[in-house]
Amino acid sequence: MPLGKRTDCGDARYAGCVVAFSNNPSQHLQAALQSGFDFITAPLADPAYRRPAANSAVKGAQQPDFSVQNLLLISSKCSSQVVGQASEWLQPDAADADLRAESQKRLRAELDWASHLSMQAVILPTPPALNTANFAQALTHALAGQGNMAMWVTLPMIRPNATSTGARASQMQSSTDAGSVPEAASDHDSAGRLAEDTWEWWHQLRTLCSHPARLGLLLEVPTSLPSQQEIHRWLGEPVRALLLPTHIFLTNKRGYPTLSRAHQSLVSLFLQHHVQILMTGPSHHAVPGSSMGNGQQAVQANGPDIILPDQHPLQVYLEYASFLFRRLPTPEAQELMEVGYRDYLQAPLQPLQDNLESQTYETFERDDTKYSSYERAVHAALLDAAPRLGERHAVIMVVGAGRGPLVRASLQAAEKAGRAVRVFAVEKNPNAVIELQAMLIREGWEDAVDLVMADMREWEAPEQADFIVSELLGSLADNELSPECLDGAQRFLAPQGVFIPSSYNSFIQPITSAKLWNDVRNYDDQEHFETSFVVKLHNFSPLAAPQLLFSFQHPADRLPPDNTRFATLMFERPNEPSQLCHGLGGYFDCVLYKDITLSTLPATHTPGMFSWFPIYFPLQDPVYCPAGAAVHASMWRCTGAHKVWYEWMLSRPAPTHLHNPLGRSSFVGL
Amino acid sequence: MPLGKRTDCGDARYAGCVVAFSNNPSQHLQAALQSGFDFITAPLADPAYRRPAANSAVKGAQQPDFSVQNLLLISSKCSSQVVGQASEWLQPDAADADLRAESQKRLRAELDWASHLSMQAVILPTPPALNTANFAQALTHALAGQGNMAMWVTLPMIRPNATSTGARASQMQSSTDAGSVPEAASDHDSAGRLAEDTWEWWHQLRTLCSHPARLGLLLEVPTSLPSQQEIHRWLGEPVRALLLPTHIFLTNKRGYPTLSRAHQSLVSLFLQHHVQILMTGPSHHAVPGSSMGNGQQAVQANGPDIILPDQHPLQVYLEYASFLFRRLPTPEAQELMEVGYRDYLQAPLQPLQDNLESQTYETFERDDTKYSSYERAVHAALLDAAPRLGERHAVIMVVGAGRGPLVRASLQAAEKAGRAVRVFAVEKNPNAVIELQAMLIREGWEDAVDLVMADMREWEAPEQADFIVSELLGSLADNELSPECLDGAQRFLAPQGVFIPSSYNSFIQPITSAKLWNDVRNYDDQEHFETSFVVKLHNFSPLAAPQLLFSFQHPADRLPPDNTRFATLMFERPNEPSQLCHGLGGYFDCVLYKDITLSTLPATHTPGMFSWFPIYFPLQDPVYCPAGAAVHASMWRCTGAHKVWYEWMLSRPAPTHLHNPLGRSSFVGL
Repeated sequence: MPLGKRTDCGDARYAGCVVAFSNNPSQHLQAALQSGFDFITAPLADPAYRRPAANSAVKGAQQPDFSVQNLLLISSKCSSQVVGQASEWLQPDAADADLRAESQKRLRAELDWASHLSMQAVILPTPPALNTANFAQALTHALAGQGNMAMWVTLPMIRPNATSTGARASQMQSSTDAGSVPEAASDHDSAGRLAEDTWEWWHQLRTLCSHPARLGLLLEVPTSLPSQQEIHRWLGEPVRALLLPTHIFLTNKRGYPTLSRAHQSLVSLFLQHHVQILMTGPSHHAVPGSSMGNGQQAVQANGPDIILPDQHPLQVYLEYASFLFRRLPTPEAQELMEVGYRDYLQAPLQPLQDNLESQTYETFERDDTKYSSYERAVHAALLDAAPRLGERHAVIMVVGAGRGPLVRASLQAAEKAGRAVRVFAVEKNPNAVIELQAMLIREGWEDAVDLVMADMREWEAPEQADFIVSELLGSLADNELSPECLDGAQRFLAPQGVFIPSSYNSFIQPITSAKLWNDVRNYDDQEHFETSFVVKLHNFSPLAAPQLLFSFQHPADRLPPDNTRFATLMFERPNEPSQLCHGLGGYFDCVLYKDITLSTLPATHTPGMFSWFPIYFPLQDPVYCPAGAAVHASMWRCTGAHKVWYEWMLSRPAPTHLHNPLGRSSFVGL
Repeated sequence: MPLGKRTDCGDARYAGCVVAFSNNPSQHLQAALQSGFDFITAPLADPAYRRPAANSAVKGAQQPDFSVQNLLLISSKCSSQVVGQASEWLQPDAADADLRAESQKRLRAELDWASHLSMQAVILPTPPALNTANFAQALTHALAGQGNMAMWVTLPMIRPNATSTGARASQMQSSTDAGSVPEAASDHDSAGRLAEDTWEWWHQLRTLCSHPARLGLLLEVPTSLPSQQEIHRWLGEPVRALLLPTHIFLTNKRGYPTLSRAHQSLVSLFLQHHVQILMTGPSHHAVPGSSMGNGQQAVQANGPDIILPDQHPLQVYLEYASFLFRRLPTPEAQELMEVGYRDYLQAPLQPLQDNLESQTYETFERDDTKYSSYERAVHAALLDAAPRLGERHAVIMVVGAGRGPLVRASLQAAEKAGRAVRVFAVEKNPNAVIELQAMLIREGWEDAVDLVMADMREWEAPEQADFIVSELLGSLADNELSPECLDGAQRFLAPQGVFIPSSYNSFIQPITSAKLWNDVRNYDDQEHFETSFVVKLHNFSPLAAPQLLFSFQHPADRLPPDNTRFATLMFERPNEPSQLCHGLGGYFDCVLYKDITLSTLPATHTPGMFSWFPIYFPLQDPVYCPAGAAVHASMWRCTGAHKVWYEWMLSRPAPTHLHNPLGRSSFVGL
């Protein structure tokens, strides 16, 4: 039973609970489902069971590792509702060679068993800080198989103190056996500092495993939360579920469990990023007034005995999570429309080279925010131009008119301004021209508008334009070649004429997004790593705020202007934690006319506008950025006789190679 | 005219000199050749020529960048003897946008010109420390072409002080223009520290360029030399030539140029590593007693005027270099034999799976050092066993007898020990058995030796062996499956019997070797990056001393023993400079019998033995190891039903992915 009915949060609708080992957990599962949980997680093997060392030597390799009593058994129809948990005692990187060997063997056997049961996911123990050679090897081997079972590594959001679950990790680190990897103190204590940050544990493990798409995180929420930066960086990582132990809950006046404000924000944040919830621990809240309550105190859900009270001991926590879920801000229409596009890579449009389809025009024409801004811009420009124009009509040329939305905006603006206008609608796509003509007839605008089928760069205009109105911007402003097109149109701009838009800026920022990077890698070639993608960035985390990249102004000072650009942006991160840079996110803003602007920058995004998603420039090899280290990114806009392309690279904290040299992998045709 | 006749130093035989710009440098070339130089380096363009900025705007893009007077012209027959030098004033990363643009354009034009002249190599200016975005872009573009012209980046071995050639670099770094990359002081001054080390400049540049094989180094030798570690790390980098400025020379009592002992060692070291020499600077030594001398003082070889004295002004320096070259230690026969194998990758033998060819046996049989060690080992073992054997003959089983060298060594040892022996020669390769039989007949040993065609793991021996003698070791000791074979033979070892060899250890060390890494990359697949190669390591540089990896002993304590192994080795580098780790080099030593050992470890290499080259385990992505940072490497020996394979990775200073999981790319068949 999902937490709520809304569909914009993906798997975050679902919540589960941790149950103790049971050979046949169907009773547990039934109890959890009846109480509203959607799934349970259950140990794959009896934690008490350790195969006697003597046995293994005597009985040889032909014996199975387990007998039927020691293993989780579920029917295949339940396999989607049970997530297997590998044994927590497993220490594949233990200093003790026997324990290490036994752990490796047992881990392999448990993963095999989970796979045999067709489980969708299996939960792995917490990696022992940075010392994870054999753990990584076991996962790499398991992930090499053809299955699609996901693996969730359990990771505390902050390092537990040595007296709690962290004891094992620190004990293992202090070992000095030749077969294990104690952290050397001599190396400037850098290992020690790194081992403080559990993100580093995760990063070490997933890198050794080669960033597998099937490896995700079960992130444990602590009582004391880390900084906002340390929380937000997880949004770009493959967090599959939040582990909420009951001990992080407070008690409200009525005896119900509640979370601190900070914890509420955190849970809400992850729910909004498709992360589901997993409850664990004994119940500390027996709710007296509950209709289903039976007064039982602190029921041990994880205990060895199966207790099935009338009410599931964790149900009050589930109800609280459901309350948080239902309390999430209602998504706006624009957001709902965009849900399907979240973190979905699209090749950028090439409107100059290809002709757009009618459907594409239609989608973009729905962006009322954008066109009303254009209408206001034309209106303001007409009013300002009144002294100059005197009694004569104004000449407005809409270049790249498409199916006519800017023609409509211009005529409406002119009407509001009380100004007679002559509009030229210039469009090179013959199919769009036909639809535009139909629109003019339909609206009775045939006399007011001259329809011209031409490429604005070649058209010989019959008169000069007072206003050249265009919508040629791409996700990075200039990436659909607005500069080259408008430079080509500048020939027919009147001396005091005005371009709408008159200027635009692009911005980039380094980002973490394991999802996008993996999707690019799935193409299995270099070409896609040297291609930019339009994408509604959602599960991502910036390493720093966006910075200004390139600027363009119209009209240009001289013709032809130099439309090549180069910039190295220095993103300082003095107080930021370690993160992995998977590439650059790009945005833009533009001035339509004076103070009438449009923006796709997160901080200044034009409300309700949906025409542009951000753009993503991947890095072939993700770059590890240590805490506090600056990121320097260089980007070039290059122009050739027949194409325009971008090249990019990072030079700090570590150099990448130059991406897309000479436009070998991607370009925009002129 | 090469420096000397020896052929073991490759291109190091050749020396060149730097000449000043001349439109047609044939006179310069003739003078240099007559004086014994093999080539000259000459500026590609007149350094005084800078295309007027006004011109470029007026005359448009159709004009060539140069006129004929401003460019180096050479005939194609000279192109192998002239190395072009790009202009030193080029600053493609200058803060000033005009200078930057002009430099980028000019650099492209000069490289184009050098390519047009079919030059073998062109010399590039020193990169401006870490700020090399546009320089790297220009090189990447140039290297994307189909040509094979090499590019040598000029690099001072230590950072020049600000008053000499370093002035430009430091000036550029202090700029604050938005288009350039000043090093930020806030980032823990790490950039500042890095910029002190010119190796970092090189590393930044070649990484941004994606480690191109055609990009090499012209390494300038300073007056004050850096530490030995800082010198030796260059041996693994693609140094093509040493630049020797005349000002580093001292004057001996007779007025001749000479070098300090440290400089002599350095030059000799590089000559032994195939690095040629390039002389530059004005002559400070007019040698009075020289037969060709004319008393001219300090002739300006780099000056604007062409002066052609009887003797080339740099000839005395060339003669000194020739003296150093001729003084290099005479290579031993073994070394000369190995010259052709230096840094040449070979797939390891699979003697268990494939049958060796006669030629392969023949080559290895020539290793007298190895077989005399075996003879001494058998001899000593026979003497020690005398009390146990009493009057009876000793049973020696040579397992993997091949064409019989160990049969010979055993019989000779028995004769010297005065001990009657019965030898079993067990060999599975039917062709080798035929040759072995011929040898027995030829030597009259048919009665002393029982010839058995069998796999030792399956052979039912008619009696027990007092001694089992084998030569099954590979470059990493166990990598040709000696453990599995000898375990299989252990069934027929007498209770107090002896294995020769009785134990062996493998060792690894992290190494820099740009050459080997690039050769692996040339295969253009992942498979070869997950394969080990036998290679005579020559142009390489260790990051740390080798450490013990795996050990094996025979007889095993119990059968079958566990022949899987795992180790994480921690290479501390507290005083080492920054280096790039391209993979792991592997060696071994073994105990034949008691103190009679063999070793391929550099520090303890058995003199004259040539049967084994080291082994190289590549890393797909080379790992940057900062100064002082430890390297942690993990390696597994894995065994399956039908194969044995290695898996490896680095976990510090940065994690790599696990190489060759499950033996997916390479394995040894059982």
